[in-house]
Parts: sequence; structure tokens; C-alpha cells
Amino acid sequence: MPEFLNLKPPTEALAQLLENLSIKIKPEKIAVSDSLGRVLDQPVVAGYPLPSFKRSTVDGFAVKAEDTYGASESLPAYLPHKGEVPMGAVPDFSLDKGWCATIHTGGMLPEGANAVIMIEHTQQARDGEIELLRSVAVGENVLQVGEDVDEGEIVVSAGTVIRPPEIGGMMALGVTEIMVASRPRVGIISSGDEVVPPHEEISPGEVRDVNSYTLQALVQQAGGEAILYGIAPDRREAMERIIRQAHEECDLVIVTAGSSASARDLTSIVIDDLGPPGVLVHGVNVRPGKPTILGVCNGKPLIGLPGNPVSALVIAGLFVVPVIQLYLGIQSNNVQPSVEARLKVNLSSQAGREDWVAVQLVEEGGQMFADPVFGKSNLIFTLARANGLVKIPADANGLAADQIVQVWMM
Amino acid sequence: MPEFLNLKPPTEALAQLLENLSIKIKPEKIAVSDSLGRVLDQPVVAGYPLPSFKRSTVDGFAVKAEDTYGASESLPAYLPHKGEVPMGAVPDFSLDKGWCATIHTGGMLPEGANAVIMIEHTQQARDGEIELLRSVAVGENVLQVGEDVDEGEIVVSAGTVIRPPEIGGMMALGVTEIMVASRPRVGIISSGDEVVPPHEEISPGEVRDVNSYTLQALVQQAGGEAILYGIAPDRREAMERIIRQAHEECDLVIVTAGSSASARDLTSIVIDDLGPPGVLVHGVNVRPGKPTILGVCNGKPLIGLPGNPVSALVIAGLFVVPVIQLYLGIQSNNVQPSVEARLKVNLSSQAGREDWVAVQLVEEGGQMFADPVFGKSNLIFTLARANGLVKIPADANGLAADQIVQVWMM
Repeated sequence: MPEFLNLKPPTEALAQLLENLSIKIKPEKIAVSDSLGRVLDQPVVAGYPLPSFKRSTVDGFAVKAEDTYGASESLPAYLPHKGEVPMGAVPDFSLDKGWCATIHTGGMLPEGANAVIMIEHTQQARDGEIELLRSVAVGENVLQVGEDVDEGEIVVSAGTVIRPPEIGGMMALGVTEIMVASRPRVGIISSGDEVVPPHEEISPGEVRDVNSYTLQALVQQAGGEAILYGIAPDRREAMERIIRQAHEECDLVIVTAGSSASARDLTSIVIDDLGPPGVLVHGVNVRPGKPTILGVCNGKPLIGLPGNPVSALVIAGLFVVPVIQLYLGIQSNNVQPSVEARLKVNLSSQAGREDWVAVQLVEEGGQMFADPVFGKSNLIFTLARANGLVKIPADANGLAADQIVQVWMM
Repeated sequence: MPEFLNLKPPTEALAQLLENLSIKIKPEKIAVSDSLGRVLDQPVVAGYPLPSFKRSTVDGFAVKAEDTYGASESLPAYLPHKGEVPMGAVPDFSLDKGWCATIHTGGMLPEGANAVIMIEHTQQARDGEIELLRSVAVGENVLQVGEDVDEGEIVVSAGTVIRPPEIGGMMALGVTEIMVASRPRVGIISSGDEVVPPHEEISPGEVRDVNSYTLQALVQQAGGEAILYGIAPDRREAMERIIRQAHEECDLVIVTAGSSASARDLTSIVIDDLGPPGVLVHGVNVRPGKPTILGVCNGKPLIGLPGNPVSALVIAGLFVVPVIQLYLGIQSNNVQPSVEARLKVNLSSQAGREDWVAVQLVEEGGQMFADPVFGKSNLIFTLARANGLVKIPADANGLAADQIVQVWMM
């Protein structure tokens, strides 16, 4: 098995793949209201400050702070009432020294006012006069102009994955359309003479295509557009035709290998023929997923995944997802959700190889435990029973029970 | 402010809301290939075992294990070669004692074989004979029938949020259509005379509608279908007409209050008029979000959120998301992604009130730190600068710097 003589560590293999790519992000214009989860391509700059006028943060009375100094429950201040600030409009009066005016949360401070006293700290005195039971400082209960963002400030930077707060912030600035990275097109090809489409009846010896659909879902989760090319037979011409078509039409091509060694070799031969530099990595020092193929033809990546559904999904997480993120230009300080948990049993591994083990996270007595879900990498329900993955680093012989481990959520 | 006299703790308020709902999950049939993130409504049962035949997990030779016992590099066993197992078909021969046959990964074991020896542990001997350099045990390198799932086993239970592995597992069983919970329809109404649609120019004193869009995105993230009813003016008849329409057309109605106290009261008055029992909770002991209103009219929930965009989003996470999850029937052991981090500064809070503080998670020297993003709850970009929320429980006076806190990812 010459292809496995030189197994690369996963991080080194990924680095080699990424540095051989020539990826251009393709921007497209979309409505901000449809932008959840998309990745911003051009920074959004505030066209004016937010808030754009001085606003009250409470219901109460706009005042000059100095008119309230010394006021207390035992010695209230009394201010004549000038009127009411309308919501959504500029007050049609200004506040002279010694006066106050009704203002609601979000209302615009009248000219001359510099603070707001909460209604709870006032009482209606004689008709047309308000009793203040405490003092307020300059700026109290007031949002200043630009306190949220300054004019000209970059409010959402390029590469940000858009979440509800970004949507809200852009809407607040009147930005209703933005340029985002278009979703990279990811062609998915299954192969293997034993593989049949899921809706067909199977005969003994056949299995249904799982990988096209798990990878489709993973690609969608990562922000790509999945295009299914069906199941290629284990014959060179057929395989070459379908991979070539996918390579022309897509930004990234994934081929899950037929199970047999010859079918696996076919993927590598076709990739080498398609364009330079061809296959970069054949065999990665990771379990599951050793027979992974990473190639680049004319700047575009092609990834050959093992046919085992568990291996295919785990390895796609290691190699396909980062390529999709590169096409999307994701730059934000994305913390991958992970959870610390106490390992329930010993996990052995072979030193020098990175292992990924499926675990079920369970909470017991307020503590998180990671319970490995054992199962050969051919068994798709191994992953269905798990909700996380634990990495055993290459420099470890395994992990000990009761050890605290980092669990990557699935 | 009589409505705030009796502030409920958030968990108690949520429990009261949920127990007054009469929610029926509405199932709909969809393709498994479109089911990512949907919630299964009826359990999926394996119609037959997986694997459904004995499969090899390696490339090599199918053997009777007993024919290999004692074989070693210094004393190999020699077995005549019977033929090759074709991929995707039943072998047209059975294996008699003393014979072996070529088999590929995923191939079906011929009748009579009970183990597979890896090709790496064999050599081609004389023509038609294979040299075995080690022994294999019964069952070695073989997937047994039903090793993944048994016939009749529930493979995905009702209430499961569907991920790539579930999609793969169902496809492996030939299940290509499933019943899922339909997305609850969530009507979203903004209110306030100062609020204008984001695409319109604003005049001084006006602000753009932020809440309709942040809540739309949050509802979509949680698995609901958001329906925007626009901005209701702060007048009783108009507000009542729009809330009544949304209540008829949707499963859940959210009203973000106009900023003024009178506008907030309007929401509560309209909900009380709409049907029994009406407003259940008016005022929750949480910051931000004290003026939250929880109501139920004729079994359907209505939630009044504060007008401040930060409060609206945080409170929607506490009350809207659980209601959507109830409509979806989510049952799976869902571990909400959270991260442990070291708090960078002291956070004070008022004992007796639950506080939620926006933080920026940053990794420094391999350790996670939570750096609070301070900002009044009116400032939407406070949340845009944050990627997590930290809870200060009601029974605490605050959290100390250097303390390890749980951060809920945003």
C-alpha cells in the first residue's frame, strides 16, 4: 500500500491544501433581512452617529441637572412644567433654566435640557408644577449622540458571520442591503459498485448511499451550496467524466471513495490527470480517515474521503469545512462551541496518530461527562448516538478516565 | 408603576407561561434530504438490521478463522484461492474448509467464511495460493448483521433535532421521507410612534425599527417561521387590530413595546381583552428586560418585550425560544453550547435579580477569558460586539474577576 507510506499529520495536510488554492470570494448583494448566517464581504460603515440625537433612557422629566441639585425627599425642588416631548419628533420648545418637561423613554431631549429625572422620583405638585424628590447629575438617564457608534466607524467588519445583533445594528443605521460572500458550490460524488440511491430497494451485497446526504447536510451547515452528482461507478472513464464535470461547475469537489482499494486509487488517478498540481496528500495520520486524498487542480480543491460514513463525516469536518470557510472569507473571532467534560472511561490510541472519538455528553449531578460511543467507523448510527467528538492528540497514547477533556459539539 | 410591584423570577415566569399553553405540534411530511435542523415528529424504526449482511471492514481475504490458527511470519499458512467477492453482489460461491477468497472493504462474506485477514498480512504464494503471515480470530475484520442497528429498533426518536448523522442513518435504512414538526408561525409586531421602517429616511426624534429584524432572525435560528406585521402606532384601536390579526394567524405573537409607559401598558390592555386568561406575568425580575409581559389568550402565547433592542433580544432568548421549542416538540438531550471562561473584571449586580451581561470571549495564551461589553440596553452594537452572555444568578451580588464563568454562545 504505497500510498500510506507517508502519512501526513492532519494540520500539516490541511496547510498544504490551503496554500495551493487560489480562492476568489464571489460577492453578491442581498437584503439584510435575509442575511442570517451569511458572511459580510465589505465592511459596513456608520453613515451617521447612533443615537443620532440625545435620547432619554427612562420615563420622567427632562431638566437642567443644576436645577435639581440639593433636592431630596425632605427638601424637594419644584419646577414649573413646560409641556410634553412628543415621541418621534423634535420638541417644539426649548427648556429654560428652572423648567421641566415630560419625556418618555426614547424621547428626544429638548434644547437646553441635560438630564432626565425618573418619574418614580417625582410627584405632581400644584397644577403645572412638578416636585422633584432627588437630584440628577448632568447626563443622567440620557443617551448621548454617538454613544452606540460614531459616524464613520466600521460597525461590522468584512468576514463577520452575521447574527441577529449585526442584523439589528445594520437596520438601525438604515443599511438594508449588503454584499456577502456567495455560497461556494460544493460538488459531492459518491462512488462504489455496491452503493445504490437511498430510495431504491437493495439486494444482498448492496448498501444505500449515505455519504452524499451526510455531506450535503454538513456543507449546508458550513455555509456552502451542495450539488449532488450521484453515484459514480468504479470505472475510470465514468469516474473521470463525472469528476471533471463537477470540477468545472463547482468551487470544491468531494469524492467519497468506493470501498475497495482499486476504487480509492481511481479517485487519486483521476485527480492527478485533471490538472496541476493534482494530488498533494494521499493518506492522513488520523483515525478514522487514513485514506483521505487532498488535491488541487488549477487552483480548485478536490477532496477524496473514505467511503465509511463515520470517517467521511469526521474528515469532512477537518478538511471540507475549513475550505468552505476560506471561500466565505470568515474572519470573525469564531469560537467553536466546545464543552469541558469528564471522560467516563479510558481511551487508548496509537501514539503518533490523531484520533477522533465520538462521545455522548451527559449531565449527571451538575457535572458534564463524556461517554464514548464505541462503534466501527462503518456504523453511521455510532454518530447518531453521539453529540460530540473528542480529539486524542497525536502525541498521546490515549486519554485516562476522569480526565477533563474538550468536547466539540456535533 | 403598579405593574412592577410583583416582579417574577424568570424561571417561575416561564413555567407559568408554559403551563397555560395548549400546544399541538402540527406534523408535516418532508424529504429526509431537506430535514437538516428540523425536529422529528414520529420515531423512525429500522425496517431491517444494519448491516443487513456480513461485511468485510478491510481489503484482504475471507477465510475460516480456524484455517489460520498458528500462522505466523516464520510459519505461514497456505490457502488455495477460491475467487473474488464482487462488490455489491452475493458471492456466487461458498467457502469450504481450507480455502480463501479475495474480498474488498464492504464486500459480503461468502457463505462459510467467518473472518477476514488484511491484505497487509498476506502474500501471493504460488499461483492460486495465498500465504497467511498471521492468524485471525472468528469475526475479525467483519461487521456482523445488526451490529449497527437491529430490526425493529427505534433509530431516531421523536423530538430529535436532525443533524447530518441522523440524515445518513435514515438514508442507510431507505427512509427518505419523514414526519417533522412544522415550524411554528411567530408573528412579530413592533410599536412606537418614534419607530420607522429601516429603509426609510429618519427625521430627528425618530429611530429605525431594529426589533422586528433581530427577532425575525432569532425566531429563524430557533426553528420558527417569522411573520412581520410591521410597526403598530401607539393607539389602542390600531394596536388591537394588528395584535388580533397576528393572534389569529400565528402560533405565537411577540409585541415589542413602544418606549413610553403608556405604549407598554397598551400591549397589556390589548392582551387582556383578547381572550382568557390574558396577561399572566407583567414584570420579570431580570435585567435587562424588567417590563416583560407574558400572556396567553385561548391557549396561544403572546409575549410583550421591552422596546430596547438589547433587552428584546436577551428576553426573547429566555421566553420566545423555549415556546418555539415546545411547538417543535424538541426532546433530544440538547446541550446548549457554552464555554467556560475566566472573567476579566468584577461584575456587580443587585441581589434578588437575575442579570445577563454581554461578553466578548477571547483566547489568550490558551485560556478563555470573558470580557464584558458594557453598554446601555438601548445600544444594539453592545450585542454586535459580544459573542456570549453570562448570567449573574439572582442569589448573587455579582461575580468576581478571575472567577470561572459559564458563557452561553450567541
